[in-house]
Amino acid sequence: MYELGVVYRNIQRTEAHVADRLTALGSATVHEAMGRVGLMKPYMRPIYAGAQVSGTAVTVLLHPGDNWMMHVVAEQIRPGDVVVAAITAECTDGYFGDLLATSFQARGARALVIDAGVRDVKTLTEMKFPVWSRAISSKGTIKATLGSVNIPVVCAGALVHPGDVIVADDDGVVCVPRAMAAAALEAATQREANEGDKRAKLAAGVLGLDMYNMREPLAKAGLRYID
Amino acid sequence: MYELGVVYRNIQRTEAHVADRLTALGSATVHEAMGRVGLMKPYMRPIYAGAQVSGTAVTVLLHPGDNWMMHVVAEQIRPGDVVVAAITAECTDGYFGDLLATSFQARGARALVIDAGVRDVKTLTEMKFPVWSRAISSKGTIKATLGSVNIPVVCAGALVHPGDVIVADDDGVVCVPRAMAAAALEAATQREANEGDKRAKLAAGVLGLDMYNMREPLAKAGLRYID
Amino acid sequence: MYELGVVYRNIQRTEAHVADRLTALGSATVHEAMGRVGLMKPYMRPIYAGAQVSGTAVTVLLHPGDNWMMHVVAEQIRPGDVVVAAITAECTDGYFGDLLATSFQARGARALVIDAGVRDVKTLTEMKFPVWSRAISSKGTIKATLGSVNIPVVCAGALVHPGDVIVADDDGVVCVPRAMAAAALEAATQREANEGDKRAKLAAGVLGLDMYNMREPLAKAGLRYID
Amino acid sequence: MYELGVVYRNIQRTEAHVADRLTALGSATVHEAMGRVGLMKPYMRPIYAGAQVSGTAVTVLLHPGDNWMMHVVAEQIRPGDVVVAAITAECTDGYFGDLLATSFQARGARALVIDAGVRDVKTLTEMKFPVWSRAISSKGTIKATLGSVNIPVVCAGALVHPGDVIVADDDGVVCVPRAMAAAALEAATQREANEGDKRAKLAAGVLGLDMYNMREPLAKAGLRYID
Amino acid sequence: MYELGVVYRNIQRTEAHVADRLTALGSATVHEAMGRVGLMKPYMRPIYAGAQVSGTAVTVLLHPGDNWMMHVVAEQIRPGDVVVAAITAECTDGYFGDLLATSFQARGARALVIDAGVRDVKTLTEMKFPVWSRAISSKGTIKATLGSVNIPVVCAGALVHPGDVIVADDDGVVCVPRAMAAAALEAATQREANEGDKRAKLAAGVLGLDMYNMREPLAKAGLRYID
Amino acid sequence: MYELGVVYRNIQRTEAHVADRLTALGSATVHEAMGRVGLMKPYMRPIYAGAQVSGTAVTVLLHPGDNWMMHVVAEQIRPGDVVVAAITAECTDGYFGDLLATSFQARGARALVIDAGVRDVKTLTEMKFPVWSRAISSKGTIKATLGSVNIPVVCAGALVHPGDVIVADDDGVVCVPRAMAAAALEAATQREANEGDKRAKLAAGVLGLDMYNMREPLAKAGLRYID
Repeated sequence: MYELGVVYRNIQRTEAHVADRLTALGSATVHEAMGRVGLMKPYMRPIYAGAQVSGTAVTVLLHPGDNWMMHVVAEQIRPGDVVVAAITAECTDGYFGDLLATSFQARGARALVIDAGVRDVKTLTEMKFPVWSRAISSKGTIKATLGSVNIPVVCAGALVHPGDVIVADDDGVVCVPRAMAAAALEAATQREANEGDKRAKLAAGVLGLDMYNMREPLAKAGLRYID
Repeated sequence: MYELGVVYRNIQRTEAHVADRLTALGSATVHEAMGRVGLMKPYMRPIYAGAQVSGTAVTVLLHPGDNWMMHVVAEQIRPGDVVVAAITAECTDGYFGDLLATSFQARGARALVIDAGVRDVKTLTEMKFPVWSRAISSKGTIKATLGSVNIPVVCAGALVHPGDVIVADDDGVVCVPRAMAAAALEAATQREANEGDKRAKLAAGVLGLDMYNMREPLAKAGLRYID
Repeated sequence: MYELGVVYRNIQRTEAHVADRLTALGSATVHEAMGRVGLMKPYMRPIYAGAQVSGTAVTVLLHPGDNWMMHVVAEQIRPGDVVVAAITAECTDGYFGDLLATSFQARGARALVIDAGVRDVKTLTEMKFPVWSRAISSKGTIKATLGSVNIPVVCAGALVHPGDVIVADDDGVVCVPRAMAAAALEAATQREANEGDKRAKLAAGVLGLDMYNMREPLAKAGLRYID
Repeated sequence: MYELGVVYRNIQRTEAHVADRLTALGSATVHEAMGRVGLMKPYMRPIYAGAQVSGTAVTVLLHPGDNWMMHVVAEQIRPGDVVVAAITAECTDGYFGDLLATSFQARGARALVIDAGVRDVKTLTEMKFPVWSRAISSKGTIKATLGSVNIPVVCAGALVHPGDVIVADDDGVVCVPRAMAAAALEAATQREANEGDKRAKLAAGVLGLDMYNMREPLAKAGLRYID
Repeated sequence: MYELGVVYRNIQRTEAHVADRLTALGSATVHEAMGRVGLMKPYMRPIYAGAQVSGTAVTVLLHPGDNWMMHVVAEQIRPGDVVVAAITAECTDGYFGDLLATSFQARGARALVIDAGVRDVKTLTEMKFPVWSRAISSKGTIKATLGSVNIPVVCAGALVHPGDVIVADDDGVVCVPRAMAAAALEAATQREANEGDKRAKLAAGVLGLDMYNMREPLAKAGLRYID
Repeated sequence: MYELGVVYRNIQRTEAHVADRLTALGSATVHEAMGRVGLMKPYMRPIYAGAQVSGTAVTVLLHPGDNWMMHVVAEQIRPGDVVVAAITAECTDGYFGDLLATSFQARGARALVIDAGVRDVKTLTEMKFPVWSRAISSKGTIKATLGSVNIPVVCAGALVHPGDVIVADDDGVVCVPRAMAAAALEAATQREANEGDKRAKLAAGVLGLDMYNMREPLAKAGLRYID
């Protein structure tokens, strides 16, 4: 369960060369490679199209309408990190704007993933600081209650431990546990490997039915064609 | 009711010259011209702005989390078709990505309309393969259960028969039944005809109140002006 | 409560020099400056990114599926106004399209804020007529029932009186009551004033923890750091 | 597509002895027996717990906020019918109250299934007139626009033809097409037949794992037990 | 706009003999009698079935997750009041439980209407203290921020002034402005008057089509019967 | 992260005398006593009113539309357990009905908490087997894919480890981690201890303002009374 009022300073991050190479593979391929687990709910959307990042998670647990801990987590950011913010109850307030983004970016953060709202999205877009959030809202927050930094959190339905890898793009956000990051990278890379080949065949008009040898299992399952 | 495990190969498509000319009229005008019926629910949104298509429907019925039949429907696509995918229960999984899009595009499909999720939206956008969907999600699907192809389906609240015309743009998705497509085209064209005229008048400052002779009926309905 | 069937022609608008200067400050800063009240619900979204407006509210109350009063309100628009449309029940129909937008724009309206749907969003985007709405929908409306113009309305959860200032951008929509507009402008301007300074510091790596002197209150609240 | 302004007086109803015997089987068993199709979306809820009905569908298509056709459909009701009401757009208004219920009940209707709201639910509960609806709302409706009676409609995502059988209980609402009603009844009856037996075994502590011989397929699928 | 940090002690309540007689008429009839305005959104549901109240509104504006002002409003309650609680942002926390209910009941409150969550619903049900809310939640609140008491508030989409009449039952919640309460009572009473008569006729099998003389207008509108 | 295809047979359950005594305290008090963490989202609702349980969690992770693992988890149930079922994606299908309930009850389970749908709710109510779920649905499931039993799961936003205590009643569902169960019990018991006293005072008309000494802090915060 959540431990409140603590900041873990020393977390074990997934090695950078693993975390970084997951970027290009994308959330869909990585999610597939992991056995279809670890995905945040699809209400998490990027504030602008086209961003594609991966990075090591630093986590923060916040209370509804209170962004005090966002300043605390800023200090724990290292280059290559993605901040993952969970809230103890549903909230769409705008916890994060251009000032915090300036600070996060200066500390080396690559993105924010937050199960709440953000604001100043026009400026964030110009700054090219990507955010995945459940809402966009002008509504600000107060600074009154302690949460925690770098404890395991549940963000948009996914369990995230500090140091896990976050892979985020237009399709959504996936959390890759540190212990399986290397394996996920390898599996995802293999999936990707023969995609070019398949794409060329499909572009040439070959059907998936034939390429994947589906006709027999479909017939066996009872598929009937009617003219 | 839904017939499972069948593929109808021979469907009667609306004539291409009718289906094609509905593109430019757009979903709002066509929907209006049909008497305001046939519209899919507004949660169906395009994955990128600006796409505008019409085409003949090939339909596919899928089970939640299972996209096996997407490969089966691919073979039934003819140039000018729009694939309409319905699901037997609510689901936001990503049934469709860049590989299937490559295949659909190679077969001549103009778009996909799906009452579920899609993924690889960045690549789909680059490929200019438009999709209208209820969600975007990295979550993949399995290939285990039979659905059907080219049976009548209910997609996002609209009944679609194979061969009907689908008109889709930034405003939404309309299904025009084959039997009324020619009439809808004519009615929509007429609606469109005098729009330029109206627009010019309104741009010049003429009020709709006067242009449409609304003052008298409004007064009759009891409208009072208070200074 | 709502008075039906009336049009108030003479409303007292917030002075233009106040209303206009709120544009650049943006909905988040203005909302904060007002004490975090007056915000419409975050489901109100712009039909295209990047629009930023403020203006004096002319209000219209509509019935579900009926846009008759949109033509009545058009006549009451003066340059610098923003039309605020409330509906007596939840509805996502497309009340407003390119023809009405042409008329509104010709009258000098800067934007529409509507707690329902709009259509022709592609054309509206090309016309650069911004709309904040709860939905986009091809579904048209009828012209059968009287509502009212320039009465106080509740739009997306916010109470709007005619003549109030509406501030809208990518972050959302705020209503500033006429009586507090000058004060809100001043407070928001002050907030904005030292933002440049703060941003520079944060960009240079100074932490909010230090800039805002948060370390002591956090410690006092019991925050523990664990190595 | 929907045909507006028509009332089909002669519809072919599923035979009463079939329709009636589906009541006791319940929506879950019938839905299963049909191959898991024909179910309305789970937002359709009974206004009071415990009602269990089946009956032949008479259908009505209504416009948002307009219940005029409810009076038209009343005349088409025969004893044993269930009225199925679809709306051309999403709406939660209260289309139906105690007066209409009195009339429907007098005509022999067993229930109403409506993809909108109802009111007077306290009285309806006292009258024991069951309704499955998407909402409860005091909001009344007008009587201004024609819909249709006894055309095929899409209600809460399910296609319903007049004369089909509606099976509704606390678990939801299923539509059984007339052509497959007899087969569905037989299949559902068979499913039900050995349920008593199974229940007794399970109550005695036998595990489904053993009763359904699942241990081998689970092991084959790779299930591992860890002590 | 909302004024924060104030408590208006002297409000003008609708006369008790008017407010009280609205109870039996119910929210649907009263709403209809008022011209179909003043209704809260249908997500407001009673915590138990069968409660039917009316009373004079005392209002309270709260912040998300903070119920401090609930204790402040308690002091302003007089016998016959209904407390109406609005929140400055969407929130489902449990602001109210059995202790506050004991206090409210002791002060003479008849009910609570709150656009947020409540808890201890089992005990509230046993105490017969009715609540209409948007949610039920165990989640408690803090006591840190000032709101206001007896200012006009927007609750679940309806504008409520202190002293207005709240009519609430299983169908929903209606706010009757003080100035129109007497007229609404009269209009609602008249509507109710001939309901018994109508009900008897409908129960005897007379159709609404005939009782309301709808056949001619329906035919005129173009309704066609097909045998 | 989720480990798929495994069943942990030996889990460490919270001691029964602790788990059992949490029942009477209820979810709201326990949640408060824990520092307001561990609550499932408020969409989790009991299928019938009045049930109040606590018990040790056995967990199961399921795939959308597939309840195969429900039979696997049945074998792991011991008297006093509550089964907590999480799904790898959003799903409202009816995973659980009267047969499984019979089996669970025979094994000694006190309740099911499932982030999906259930069916046969009428029978479950008669059996007095309580379920907290996000939906009720007739829609059945298949038995095709492996999940896991007794791994940590995220259910309705709350992290649940096998052996934790689940406290569920009409107000919602709280998960108490095993390590803090004894402390939570003590804290909750203390909270409860002086409630009777408070209730008596409030019932006698004493205001919370006075009982909790709130007048001074409210004045200090700036609250103004206006006559």
